[in-house]
Amino acid sequence: MNERMIKELQELLSPEQVSVNSTVLEQHAKDESHHPSHLPDVVVFPTCTEDVSRVLTWANENRVPVVPFGVGSGLEGQAIPYQGGISLDFQQMNHILEIRAEDMLVRVQPGVTRMQLNRELKKHGLFFSVDPGADATLGGMAATNASGTTSVRYGIMRDQVRDLEVVLVDGRVIRTGGKSAKSSSGYHLTGLFVGSEGTLGVFTELTLRLYGIPEATMSARASFPAISDAVNTAYAIMAAGIPVARLELVDARSIRQVNTYKGTTYPESATLFLEFHGNEAGLKQDIAFARELADEQQCTAFVFESESLGQAALWEARHHMAYAFMHGYPGRGMLTTDVCVPLSELTGAIAFAEEQLASTGMIGAIVGHVGDGNFHTLLMIDKTNPQEVEQAEKVNDYIVNYALERGGTCTGEHGVGIGKIKYQEKEHGTALDVMRSMKEMFDPQNILNPGKILPL
Amino acid sequence: MNERMIKELQELLSPEQVSVNSTVLEQHAKDESHHPSHLPDVVVFPTCTEDVSRVLTWANENRVPVVPFGVGSGLEGQAIPYQGGISLDFQQMNHILEIRAEDMLVRVQPGVTRMQLNRELKKHGLFFSVDPGADATLGGMAATNASGTTSVRYGIMRDQVRDLEVVLVDGRVIRTGGKSAKSSSGYHLTGLFVGSEGTLGVFTELTLRLYGIPEATMSARASFPAISDAVNTAYAIMAAGIPVARLELVDARSIRQVNTYKGTTYPESATLFLEFHGNEAGLKQDIAFARELADEQQCTAFVFESESLGQAALWEARHHMAYAFMHGYPGRGMLTTDVCVPLSELTGAIAFAEEQLASTGMIGAIVGHVGDGNFHTLLMIDKTNPQEVEQAEKVNDYIVNYALERGGTCTGEHGVGIGKIKYQEKEHGTALDVMRSMKEMFDPQNILNPGKILPL
Repeated sequence: MNERMIKELQELLSPEQVSVNSTVLEQHAKDESHHPSHLPDVVVFPTCTEDVSRVLTWANENRVPVVPFGVGSGLEGQAIPYQGGISLDFQQMNHILEIRAEDMLVRVQPGVTRMQLNRELKKHGLFFSVDPGADATLGGMAATNASGTTSVRYGIMRDQVRDLEVVLVDGRVIRTGGKSAKSSSGYHLTGLFVGSEGTLGVFTELTLRLYGIPEATMSARASFPAISDAVNTAYAIMAAGIPVARLELVDARSIRQVNTYKGTTYPESATLFLEFHGNEAGLKQDIAFARELADEQQCTAFVFESESLGQAALWEARHHMAYAFMHGYPGRGMLTTDVCVPLSELTGAIAFAEEQLASTGMIGAIVGHVGDGNFHTLLMIDKTNPQEVEQAEKVNDYIVNYALERGGTCTGEHGVGIGKIKYQEKEHGTALDVMRSMKEMFDPQNILNPGKILPL
Repeated sequence: MNERMIKELQELLSPEQVSVNSTVLEQHAKDESHHPSHLPDVVVFPTCTEDVSRVLTWANENRVPVVPFGVGSGLEGQAIPYQGGISLDFQQMNHILEIRAEDMLVRVQPGVTRMQLNRELKKHGLFFSVDPGADATLGGMAATNASGTTSVRYGIMRDQVRDLEVVLVDGRVIRTGGKSAKSSSGYHLTGLFVGSEGTLGVFTELTLRLYGIPEATMSARASFPAISDAVNTAYAIMAAGIPVARLELVDARSIRQVNTYKGTTYPESATLFLEFHGNEAGLKQDIAFARELADEQQCTAFVFESESLGQAALWEARHHMAYAFMHGYPGRGMLTTDVCVPLSELTGAIAFAEEQLASTGMIGAIVGHVGDGNFHTLLMIDKTNPQEVEQAEKVNDYIVNYALERGGTCTGEHGVGIGKIKYQEKEHGTALDVMRSMKEMFDPQNILNPGKILPL
C-alpha cells in the first residue's frame, strides 16, 4: 500500500481512525500463538457498520487484504495479516447495544469482550455461557467458533449466535438470522459465517443467546493415580448422562506448574475439575453419582468447593494454566494442539499424546475439555531453535493424524487459521471443493483474510 | 419426460427401481398439507449412494427436476413435484447403519423413520430427541430442520446432525462433518444443508447425536381459566430456568377435540402439558417450582402422570391433535400456521391468533411448543370453497406478519416449501441475494427441488 492509499482511507473515515504508527502496526502483527508475526500496512479503527462497509468496498476495488482484529488472543494466526494490507481493529465497536433480558438475548458489537459482557449481564441474573479462558472479543469468538470449559453443558459459540450483521466484500450489509429461539426459514447463513474466520465477510453486530445464572453451583476436584483413570471417569460421567457443566482434565505436570505459579497446593496428580449447575437437591444427587463413578476409577481425593471463593480460585487456576507455563519458562513459546475425538477414542488419544511427550522429552502438559472429547497438548518450545520447533510440529502432526484417523477433527475450538490448513484436505476430502467455491462466491478477489482456512 | 428418458433411468438403475404406475405417481403427488397436489413423471427408488449419484448426474445432464421424498408427512409442500420430473423415494434406503452407543451417535440412511430408530435405540438405553409428532423420515426431518415437543430441552434437528453424506447435483459425493462432539475446522456445511429442503443437494447418510434415556421422567397437566394464564406460566417457567423437557400449550378447543377423538376426559380449558427429565431429587424440586409458578397464574388443576402409561396417553393425545381435528371434520383440510417469536412476544402473538379465530369464526385451535416461542394455529377449511381458503390464507398472513414485525420467523419448524416463499424477502431482506447466489452455485440449472424456498 502506498501513501496515496493511506490518504484515501483517512478521507474515507477520519484521520484518527487510520494508523501507520509503528507501535500500532506491531501490536497487530501477532496473536498468542507460536505462529510467526507479520506487519499490516495500516490499522483501521471502524466505529460503525457504515465505516466497515466503506472500508471493504474500497479494499475490494483496490485489491487490498482486510484482516479483522479483536484483542489478538487467537491461537492459530487468524488475525495475523500475512499479506499485509488492512488490520481492521474493532476496539471502538465495543458497545453492548441491547440486553433483552426477557428474551434471554443480547445484541453486541463485535469488539465487546466476554468478561465485559458478563459483568453487565450479572445485574440481570443472566450470563453468556461460552468460556474459552482468554477474555476474547465476541466477534473473534464467533469468527473462530470458540468454545471452552462450559460447552459440554451449554454448547459452543455456533449454538449461541442467533443473528449476525455481516458486511460482504462489496460493502453490502446482510442480517443472517432473527430473534426467535428457532427457525426453519431460508438457508442457515448464521452457522456458515460462524467459524469462517473473516474469510467470507466481516461481522458488525451479533445477537447472542443467554442463560439464567443457575440456582446453585458446586465445584469439585477429583485426583487420580494415573491420567487414564481421570479420563475413564470423565467418560463414565458422560455416559451416565450426568448434566455436568464443566468437566476438565488437568494432568500432574499442569497441577505442578499452577501450584508454582499461583501458590496453590493442589495434589500433584492427574485431576478432574468439575462443576455442576442446577437446583440444590438435583446437584447433590448428581455429585454423589459422579463421586461413585470416580471412586470406581481409584479416585484418591474428591474435594468440594462449595464456596464461591474456592470455586473462583479453582477455575482461575484452570484458566491460568497456559500463563503458568509461559511464566515458568520465559523465553519459550507455546504450541498447543487442539484435536477433538469421539468420546470412545479419548482415552487412547490422550495416552498417545502422553507417549509423544514422554518419548520426545519435551516440556509440556495435557489439559482438556474432556466431556467434549477435546484436549490440548501444551508444548513449550524455544522458537529460535529450529529443531525444537520442528519436533513440536511433528508431535502436533502425529496427534492430529491420530484423531483424523478415528473420525475426529484437527481443531476442536481454536480454528484453522494457518496452523491447520494442511489438514483440511484429509479432514474434509471432496467437501473442500465446495468450501473453495463458497469462498470464491463470497470473495472473488480473495481480499478477505487471504491465506486462511483453505489450502491453495 | 418421454419414454426414452424413463427407459434410460431403468437402464441406469434397474427396472424395478423406476415406476410410472399411476397409483405410485399419485402417492408421490402430495404431502399432509393443504397445498395442491402435482404428479411427478416418474418415481425412482434408490438403494444406495451410487444410485442417487447416477440419477442426479443423469437428471442434471437432461435438465429433469429431482424432488426427494420420505413418507410425505411434510406440511409446506416440500416433497410435491410441482414441475414434474423425478420423485426420489428413499423407502429402500431405510437402514440403521451403525449404532455407536459409546459415542452417543448413530449413522442412518435417510429413509429411516424416527420411531424405527427409537425402537432400536431403546435396547441401548439411548434415544433420538427430535419429536415432530409425525413418524417422519430422518432425511426429511433434516431437510426441513424439523423440531417439536422436546426441542426446548434438547435442541432442533440442526443441533443433532453431526455429519451428512450429500450427493451434489453433478453426482459428486461429499461428507460435511465428522464424529467428534465439536469442530472448528472448515466451513460449516452441515448446518447449511440442514433445512435446505433438497434444493442444494440430496442426503444419502446422516450421523446423529443421541442422548441417554433419563433416569427419571415425570409428566404433568396444568389447566388454566384462560389461554393467557397458560402462556404466562410457560414464560415464567422458561424465565426461571427450569430445565423442562417438554412444555406444550393446548387450548380448550383442542382438548375438547381430543377428548372426543381419543375418549379422554381432560378438563376442557387451556392446558399446559409438561415433561421433566432428570434425577428423582432434582425433578421433585423442578416440578414443585413449576407448580408454584402455575399457581401464581390461577392454575385450576395440576395433575401428575408419573406412571409410564399415563404419560404415554398424555403425549399420544398431544401428538394426535391434528388427526383429532381431521377425523372430526371429514372432508375438510387443515392449514397450520407455524410462526416462532421471541419469548417476550409470545403472549401477544397468541392473543392475536385467538382474535383471528374469534373474528373470522373459523373452525380451528391453537397448540404450541411454547417454551421455544413456537405455536400453530390449526385452521380446518373446505378446500373446495375458495372464499374459505382465502380467509385461512389471510389469517396465516396476519399471524406471519405479526411475528415478522416483532423479530420472529414465518416458520419455526415446518420449513418454507412453497407456503412460506412469499415471506422470504420480508424475513431475510438483502440476505436473500446471498441465498440466491448459493442456490445458483450448488444447482446452476435449477433441477434440485425447483420452486421451493426461494422466490423467483
